[in-house]
Amino acid sequence: MKFKIIENHICAPQGFLASGINAGIRKNPNKPDLAIIYSKIPAISAGVFTTNQVKAAPVLLTQQHIKKNKLQAIVVNSGNANACTGKQGKLHALQMASATAKQLQIDTNKVGVASTGVIGVPLPIKKIVQGISMAASTLTTQSDSAAKAIMTTDLVPKSIAIEFKIAGHRIRIGGIAKGSGMIHPNMATMLGFITTDAAIHPTALQYALSKANDASFNMITVDGDSSTNDMVLVLANGLAKNPKINLKNDPHFKIFYEGLLYVCTALAKQIVQDGEGATKLIEVHVHGGLTQTQAQLAARAVCRSPLVKTAIFGEDANWGRIASALGASGAELNPNLLCIDLGSMPLLKKGIPLPFNESSARKLLMKNKIIVKINLKKGKAKAIAWGCDLTYDYIKINASYRS
Amino acid sequence: MKFKIIENHICAPQGFLASGINAGIRKNPNKPDLAIIYSKIPAISAGVFTTNQVKAAPVLLTQQHIKKNKLQAIVVNSGNANACTGKQGKLHALQMASATAKQLQIDTNKVGVASTGVIGVPLPIKKIVQGISMAASTLTTQSDSAAKAIMTTDLVPKSIAIEFKIAGHRIRIGGIAKGSGMIHPNMATMLGFITTDAAIHPTALQYALSKANDASFNMITVDGDSSTNDMVLVLANGLAKNPKINLKNDPHFKIFYEGLLYVCTALAKQIVQDGEGATKLIEVHVHGGLTQTQAQLAARAVCRSPLVKTAIFGEDANWGRIASALGASGAELNPNLLCIDLGSMPLLKKGIPLPFNESSARKLLMKNKIIVKINLKKGKAKAIAWGCDLTYDYIKINASYRS
Repeated sequence: MKFKIIENHICAPQGFLASGINAGIRKNPNKPDLAIIYSKIPAISAGVFTTNQVKAAPVLLTQQHIKKNKLQAIVVNSGNANACTGKQGKLHALQMASATAKQLQIDTNKVGVASTGVIGVPLPIKKIVQGISMAASTLTTQSDSAAKAIMTTDLVPKSIAIEFKIAGHRIRIGGIAKGSGMIHPNMATMLGFITTDAAIHPTALQYALSKANDASFNMITVDGDSSTNDMVLVLANGLAKNPKINLKNDPHFKIFYEGLLYVCTALAKQIVQDGEGATKLIEVHVHGGLTQTQAQLAARAVCRSPLVKTAIFGEDANWGRIASALGASGAELNPNLLCIDLGSMPLLKKGIPLPFNESSARKLLMKNKIIVKINLKKGKAKAIAWGCDLTYDYIKINASYRS
Repeated sequence: MKFKIIENHICAPQGFLASGINAGIRKNPNKPDLAIIYSKIPAISAGVFTTNQVKAAPVLLTQQHIKKNKLQAIVVNSGNANACTGKQGKLHALQMASATAKQLQIDTNKVGVASTGVIGVPLPIKKIVQGISMAASTLTTQSDSAAKAIMTTDLVPKSIAIEFKIAGHRIRIGGIAKGSGMIHPNMATMLGFITTDAAIHPTALQYALSKANDASFNMITVDGDSSTNDMVLVLANGLAKNPKINLKNDPHFKIFYEGLLYVCTALAKQIVQDGEGATKLIEVHVHGGLTQTQAQLAARAVCRSPLVKTAIFGEDANWGRIASALGASGAELNPNLLCIDLGSMPLLKKGIPLPFNESSARKLLMKNKIIVKINLKKGKAKAIAWGCDLTYDYIKINASYRS
C-alpha cells in the first residue's frame, strides 16, 4: 500500500497539539528540553516499554497510567533519564504528570511521562514544573520544537506523518522519535511518540503497535546496549470518525497496521541513520531462515557486530566478518550453502568465496547506504535489520557523555 | 594455592620444544608467522573449540585428530584464518598436518592445526609447507618466537609458565596465547596452547580444561564478536612421572586443576589487556547472583557494553551505564537493592545513587586497571569477568584490517 507523506508530524492528525521549550535542564538555553503532546479529547492508547530490569521511574509510572488504555497528554524531558533515582525519582515522575494534568485540566492518570538523558542524577524538578507550565501555555498545531526537545545526542530531529483512507475517512498518523546511542532490541533505546486520529479498539491498537515495533524499532541497533528508559506510545483520538477498527475479522485493521508500520519503520531508519558518529546506514536482508525469530536474530547480529561496523566504516569488503557474525548469532545456518552479497555483488556463494573486484566493492561501500543480502539456506523465513557503522565519533561522543 | 612462576613458557615442561619462523604469509619478513610445538613423546591431549557454526578448516581437522586424545605436535599460522575457504581449505589444513608429521616423523593424526588471520582467502600453501620444514628444523627448548608467530593484531606476545609439586614430583605447566580483537565467549576469539609434563588421564584433562576455560577465556570480552577459529589445546606428556591424575576421588586433581586455571587466567588477562586499542583492563566482580551462570552473564554484559567501555576510556564515572547493562544482561537482579562500587568507592547502594567525589572517582579511573564491584542481591553466586576500554584505536585497527 502507498501512503501519502504529509507535513506537521504529530500535529498532523486532527485534534493534536504539541510544544517544546527550554526548561533549563540542559546548559544550552537554545536547545528545547521539555515537550508536551496533547489530544483535545482523551485518546485510546497503547505502549511498548524497555525490557531492561532496571526501569526508570517514568517508565514504571507510564506503564501504570496506560493500563486503562486512555491517555490525553504526554510530557517528556531530555537531559536527565530519572533512572536509578530511588523513591525520589518516582515522586518526581508523578510530579511531572500531576503538573501537566493541572495545566491541561485533565486527570493525572491520563498523562504519560518519559525522560531521557543521564542516569542516576535527580531531576531538577522545580525547573521542570515551571517548564511544564510554559510548555502547556505554548501548545500549537504547528510544533517543530517537540521533536527537538526530546533529542539528546541526536544531530537531527526525527519525524514523519502520513495520510490514507479507511472507509472513505481520511486517517492520519504522525510520529516523532529520538535515538541515537544505546539503540538495540529489545526494544532499542529510544523514545517514540505516535499520534493518530483513527478510531480503533484498544486491543487492536496494542496488537498493532507491538507487532509494528517488533519489525521496526526492534530491528535497529547502534551499539547493542539497551536502556532503562525505552518507550513508544501511540495515542488514537478517533476524530477521523472512521468505523472503529477491530482486531478480528476487520479488513480495515490491516490497512491501519500497515500505516503504523510505515511510520515506525521510517522513524526507526531515521534513528539508526543518526546513530552516534554514524556515517553510513547498513541494511541487512536475511533470507532462508528456519524461523522468523532466527532470521531476525541473524540480521541483527550482523548489524550489531563491531567488526562488521568498523569494516564498513573503513569501506573494506571484509565479508568474513559477516560470516563469522552469522555463525555466532545463534541462528541456524548451512555453512556449505551460505550466501552473502554486498548489494548486487555476490561475495560468498554456497559457502565458497567468489573472486570479486576490490575497487567495485569499495565503490559500493563508499555509498551512504550499504545493503547486505544473506541466505542462511535453512528455511523460508526472512527479516530486515538496520544498523550503522562504528566510527571515531562514536567513541568521542561516549567517552565523556556526562561532561 | 601458590604457584611459582618460571621462565620459558611452553618449553618449560620437560620434553617440549617449539619454534616460530617467518614463512612469508605476512608481508613483514621480520614477523614470524608460523609456529610448531612438539612433544618428544605423544601426549594426552584435550581441546576446547569455537561454538561458531562457521568453523574454519583447521578447527574441524583438529577436532577430528583430538578424538583419540593424543597429539604430539601443533602447527599454527597467523596472517590467514583458512576459514570460509571450502573444500580447498580443508585440503590445505590436512596438508599442514601431513607436512608437519612428515618433518617430525610422526602420524598425521597426532598433529593439531590452527590458523588465525583474515577469513575467506586461500592459504599460500606452498609457502606454508616450506615454512613447516624450516620450523621443524629449528625446534628448540628455548623458544621465544612461537608466541610471536601466532600474533595477529596483538602488540605483545602472551605467555606464562608455572611450577608446583604433586606427590613430590615437580610439575610444570606452560602456555602461549593470542588475542586481541573478536575476544568474547564462547569461547573468546583466540588461540591458546598449553603444555605440561604432568601424567594425567584424558578424561581428567578434558574436564580440567573445559572448566578452567569457562572461568578464564570464557570470561573475557574485547568486542563481543566470536570467531571462526577459536581453539585452546593442552598437551600433557607425563614426563614428570607423577602418579597418574584421575578425575574422581583423586586429591591431586584439584591441585592440577588450580594450576591449569592459573595459567588460563593469566593468559586470558594478558589477552584482554592487549585488546585492540585498549588502554585499560576492566575487572568486573559480580556477587549476589541467583546462579553461577547468571553471575557470569551479568559480569560479561558489563565488560561487553560499548557505553561502559567508552565511559571508562573517557575516565567518566558514568555508573548508570553499568546499571543499564546489568538490567539488560538477562541475569536477574533486585533493582531496589542493587549495589555498584568503583574500586573502593560505592556509587549505588541498595538502588540509591550515593553522592561521590568526582575527582576521586576520576583518579580511580585514571589507573590502568579498573575494578567494578556489583551485588545483584538475588543469591549467592559470584563471577569475575575481564574486559578493556573501547578507544579510537579499536576503530583504526578494524576499519581497514585487510589493507
